[in-house]
Amino acid sequence: MRIDEQTEKLINGDFYAAAKLITSLENNNHPDEIIKEIYPYRKDSYLLGITGAPGVGKSTITDKLINILREKGKKVGVLAVDPTSPFSGGAILGDRIRLQGHATDKGTFIRSMSTRGHLGGLAPATNNAITVLSVLGCDYIIVETVGVGQSEVEIVKYADIVLLVLTPSSGDSIQIMKAGIMEIGDVFVVNKCDRQGYGKILAELKMLQQLSEKKVNHSPAIIQTIAKENKGIDTLYNAIEDHKKFLADNGKLIHKQKMRIENEIISIIHEKLLSQTKGKLHSDNELLKIVDLVYNKETDPYSIANEIVSRNFRG
Amino acid sequence: MRIDEQTEKLINGDFYAAAKLITSLENNNHPDEIIKEIYPYRKDSYLLGITGAPGVGKSTITDKLINILREKGKKVGVLAVDPTSPFSGGAILGDRIRLQGHATDKGTFIRSMSTRGHLGGLAPATNNAITVLSVLGCDYIIVETVGVGQSEVEIVKYADIVLLVLTPSSGDSIQIMKAGIMEIGDVFVVNKCDRQGYGKILAELKMLQQLSEKKVNHSPAIIQTIAKENKGIDTLYNAIEDHKKFLADNGKLIHKQKMRIENEIISIIHEKLLSQTKGKLHSDNELLKIVDLVYNKETDPYSIANEIVSRNFRG
Repeated sequence: MRIDEQTEKLINGDFYAAAKLITSLENNNHPDEIIKEIYPYRKDSYLLGITGAPGVGKSTITDKLINILREKGKKVGVLAVDPTSPFSGGAILGDRIRLQGHATDKGTFIRSMSTRGHLGGLAPATNNAITVLSVLGCDYIIVETVGVGQSEVEIVKYADIVLLVLTPSSGDSIQIMKAGIMEIGDVFVVNKCDRQGYGKILAELKMLQQLSEKKVNHSPAIIQTIAKENKGIDTLYNAIEDHKKFLADNGKLIHKQKMRIENEIISIIHEKLLSQTKGKLHSDNELLKIVDLVYNKETDPYSIANEIVSRNFRG
Repeated sequence: MRIDEQTEKLINGDFYAAAKLITSLENNNHPDEIIKEIYPYRKDSYLLGITGAPGVGKSTITDKLINILREKGKKVGVLAVDPTSPFSGGAILGDRIRLQGHATDKGTFIRSMSTRGHLGGLAPATNNAITVLSVLGCDYIIVETVGVGQSEVEIVKYADIVLLVLTPSSGDSIQIMKAGIMEIGDVFVVNKCDRQGYGKILAELKMLQQLSEKKVNHSPAIIQTIAKENKGIDTLYNAIEDHKKFLADNGKLIHKQKMRIENEIISIIHEKLLSQTKGKLHSDNELLKIVDLVYNKETDPYSIANEIVSRNFRG
């Protein structure tokens, strides 16, 4: 693959070039060269994160939002970030299956990504894919993540807006609080609003909304949807646009972009430092010896880690 | 707090000392000194991970397992690892509430931990707490994690056995596969087996079990429980003991311990490298300048990251 050739195609909106570049980046195949080449051509895409437990309807909501965005002539990129089995390294393409109605649409690029057991939810590969989609010219980039865990914590740092999707069956309040994600959403979407228990979760969310109003000047919106029947999606779209306007009016869009860049740089540094250290330890067979020393209680993990760090890092 | 004093108390089984030390470690308060001091006194605890989405009944199963282990005279430590809000930094003590029946039992130590937004599910603090509990003399250490995400990927590396808890309402097969956790469990627990849909999930699991039998010589057990009514818990306990025997007979217990040590060392190195790099970037106000350079497209994240790494790392 010639990178300069693919870059030219990408800038001209070629989906095939985008897919090829993302695959290279996902396989950590010349990320330095690719990003350096394409970076100057980035467009200011609006980054929308959508998150929630499995089965709440994230893909269906994404599907319906795409319909509206396409009607408005917007170009849309979707990254479905799947957690990956640590053994097979493969991602399941559930989202792709659900979203395949848009597969032939020239204005919608859809891609599943695996996190490949990377420390931290959003791997450099995800940042890199976002860069590719912004060079492709997407007005909106939707990043969909599964479930409850670190990936939600990460997405706050990366997205301009975060939709947190819940359903009436999301569980009792201890469970919701425990999920630790209530403070993350810019918009709370209560999907499957035709189901039992919907009043309870709405009441809880409103309580949390009031609590957060005291802390910030822009409290999260609560939107009720039945995504399968396309109900509430217009309202959701309006809430997204309101938030976008709010961010732009307050200079917060630039702030979010800069935060994203900061996290991007640090995550690359972090990956490089770790892989260099690991590489060194493995190449000298040092790791095996170290592990045996600790196993035999001749030293402890912190003492040995300090030794390795001071040997490799210029203080 | 005098570390040597607390260590002596800890070795003598003092719960208060254990709690104090874990708090220090969680706050990253002298972890190097504490771990160095207590490490030689570690006991070979059996590390059991229990995981699954919110609401599947992990805490109830843990509760009932503790009953059996206590009957057999075993000392038990429980760490409930909660995902944490990135804003408040606080963990919700749902598990503690559920498990409070054991709070006055001298043979059961229960502790909630937050992951504090750490990259990767199990932070060094969790490893450190496991070390404390093994010095405390726990025969079994149960680590309970919430939900679907990186923490599950991490727990495989750390636990001797992983129970993956599902319920009949865990969703359709795409959702289960998508959760990416099917290959992680050593034992699949189908809880709430009195509920509808239980035949379907069982059939799916059996299919996956057969698939995995072709790959490994010890395929995961499937156990049906109604934990609230204490049904199936004896069978689950037997499956846990079987797996323990299997690991011991095949020399895999030692292998797992060594893998755990390896990951522990690397996660400490990783944290130290990252915090030193970040510290340096922040102290010189360099990060702000760098972010502006990238924002203005004068450079790209990889080029700048490479420069910083080569400046700080001895190649």
